[in-house]
Amino acid sequence: MAKDRIYNFSAGPSMLPLSVLQQAASEMTNFRGSGMSVMEMSHRSKIYQSIFDEVQADLRRIMNVPDTHEILFMHGGATAQFAAVAMNLMSRTGMAEYAITGNFANGAAKEAKKYGKVEVVCDTGERNHTYIPRQDELKLVDGASYFYYCSNNTIYGTEWDYVPETNGTPIVCDMSSDICSRPVDVSKYGVIFAGVQKNMAPAGMAVVIIDKSLAGAELPITPVIMNYKTTIDKGSMYNTPPCYTIYMLGLVLKWLDSQGGLAGMEKLKRERASVLYDFLDESKLFKACADKGSRSDMNVTFRTGDEEMDALFVKEASAAGFESLKGHRLVGGMRASIYNAMPYEGVVKLRDFMKEFEAAHK
Amino acid sequence: MAKDRIYNFSAGPSMLPLSVLQQAASEMTNFRGSGMSVMEMSHRSKIYQSIFDEVQADLRRIMNVPDTHEILFMHGGATAQFAAVAMNLMSRTGMAEYAITGNFANGAAKEAKKYGKVEVVCDTGERNHTYIPRQDELKLVDGASYFYYCSNNTIYGTEWDYVPETNGTPIVCDMSSDICSRPVDVSKYGVIFAGVQKNMAPAGMAVVIIDKSLAGAELPITPVIMNYKTTIDKGSMYNTPPCYTIYMLGLVLKWLDSQGGLAGMEKLKRERASVLYDFLDESKLFKACADKGSRSDMNVTFRTGDEEMDALFVKEASAAGFESLKGHRLVGGMRASIYNAMPYEGVVKLRDFMKEFEAAHK
Repeated sequence: MAKDRIYNFSAGPSMLPLSVLQQAASEMTNFRGSGMSVMEMSHRSKIYQSIFDEVQADLRRIMNVPDTHEILFMHGGATAQFAAVAMNLMSRTGMAEYAITGNFANGAAKEAKKYGKVEVVCDTGERNHTYIPRQDELKLVDGASYFYYCSNNTIYGTEWDYVPETNGTPIVCDMSSDICSRPVDVSKYGVIFAGVQKNMAPAGMAVVIIDKSLAGAELPITPVIMNYKTTIDKGSMYNTPPCYTIYMLGLVLKWLDSQGGLAGMEKLKRERASVLYDFLDESKLFKACADKGSRSDMNVTFRTGDEEMDALFVKEASAAGFESLKGHRLVGGMRASIYNAMPYEGVVKLRDFMKEFEAAHK
Repeated sequence: MAKDRIYNFSAGPSMLPLSVLQQAASEMTNFRGSGMSVMEMSHRSKIYQSIFDEVQADLRRIMNVPDTHEILFMHGGATAQFAAVAMNLMSRTGMAEYAITGNFANGAAKEAKKYGKVEVVCDTGERNHTYIPRQDELKLVDGASYFYYCSNNTIYGTEWDYVPETNGTPIVCDMSSDICSRPVDVSKYGVIFAGVQKNMAPAGMAVVIIDKSLAGAELPITPVIMNYKTTIDKGSMYNTPPCYTIYMLGLVLKWLDSQGGLAGMEKLKRERASVLYDFLDESKLFKACADKGSRSDMNVTFRTGDEEMDALFVKEASAAGFESLKGHRLVGGMRASIYNAMPYEGVVKLRDFMKEFEAAHK
């Protein structure tokens, strides 16, 4: 059955603003009178370079990236960065600190062990990653090349509400699922990276924001496309970049501007999440999975406590136009991923649907 | 000045069939009644998996890939594969053979040296890569983990017209600029890979076709997204793949079918190239750069011998709607890249324009 546009709660790839998709469609066969699709342009052409430069400048302005930091567009998403971070930064001391607050921080630590020693400063797995440690719970060590954490844990629905204090150790942060959802002080970070497929663009790329002084210490076995120094020196074009994905990111950034930038996104993110958490805290049927104080504004995880009831809810929600609410296979239950492009009314309608479902299954 | 669709001779990214772009545009905001763009779909969803499976099946049928070989969609283009090939295959003997017939084979050998020993079996650089060596010019050695070559040299405009005989050493071939332009006997290869941005799809991905028996011997320092065995085991979805690029590849494959598949492409490729080479061999102004017998059907390189005249030609051609004819910065002159999506009439019109230019500059 053909559907109109639905509310898509997928954890990523995920919703893009409709106006962005419409603009991409309208420019597909002939970008602004160039006679070409953006997909067809040489990455070495003036016209493509002008698109690229504007995307970089817009991101720098919107995220308030200081001159000390470079913005890179790199192939392969966050998982490629799990290796790249360690290959590029581990050599200083041969050891790095990892805060394990979920599946992707764990995956990053596993990759890093191929290239050096990993010190686990916390592991919230003993309580199924339902919380974010406080500063005094982090077991910091001396002599780390960097401190690594993941600011939002997509699978478990937790989000750091502070930037760790690391006694001068450069901070590396995977912001894949909450980048551009709130203002951040970029100067506090050595490296911020994010797979783009949740808040920024279609899948297949990572944005990397790096303190330039950290580049140039890569291990000799680093593949050239993962080399931060080379990528800086070549303006993210050592090889052909994912040109169209960068263009799509540019359209999303223009839309972000029209929505009040990161301040606008932060306000919306708090409002959207409150609608769901307020209901979950009252509901007799549904329960939020993450601890209060650690809850993510981007991924709201919840469950009924009855697997059959969970499955029924996911099925009926899908039929009603609320897509991809099934929780990750590692944890089960439900998850509503509510990234930047999810409209407020999508969350209100989901909450209303949950109320109706609860009333029908008392 | 706004232009209609132009003839785009870019070496990559490059032309895509207009009908493919039109279909992508028409499905952009709502893919076949799903209520979502393909860009927005979870890669773990049934609907996206069905798109993915169809693309793989179509490519297997069109390229006649035997069951011994797996088709992988990997992040990062050919340059990522330069490292991946060596990381995954070099361990058997610690040494591999490389045929250096151009810039990209050279880049691949440079990457491989990070992971093992490289034996150069030929280097055509002494004659500026204007020819392809014959079988008896290859200085094969014993005990190589694999034999590496690049079937079409985009920058120099040469193309191998035979598959090397390697005495049983597995053959690895970079087919980035001529994949799907002619039938190939896939069973002769250990690994075929191609960045997709010339003949297949928008930039940002490589197609890798691998003899499964070669996988599983990766070096311990191989990043997981470059691990062939993991990518096989996870169906190219260890992490989020470049979902939309895969979808675009699917549209291009349907178009390929409508054009007679690889046999149709080979006929067209010969015809297109002949139009230009026949003229170049007669012209008093323009000269082909590559030796007869080694010439590429995909990238026709030529020059006048006068840099100012070359520049004037490129400028006037661009104004007349023939885009991106400037040769690569390493070699200068001109290059007409005529991949699958370049219509025959585009080449005829370019030839006619060259004739007029020659007449005007006698």
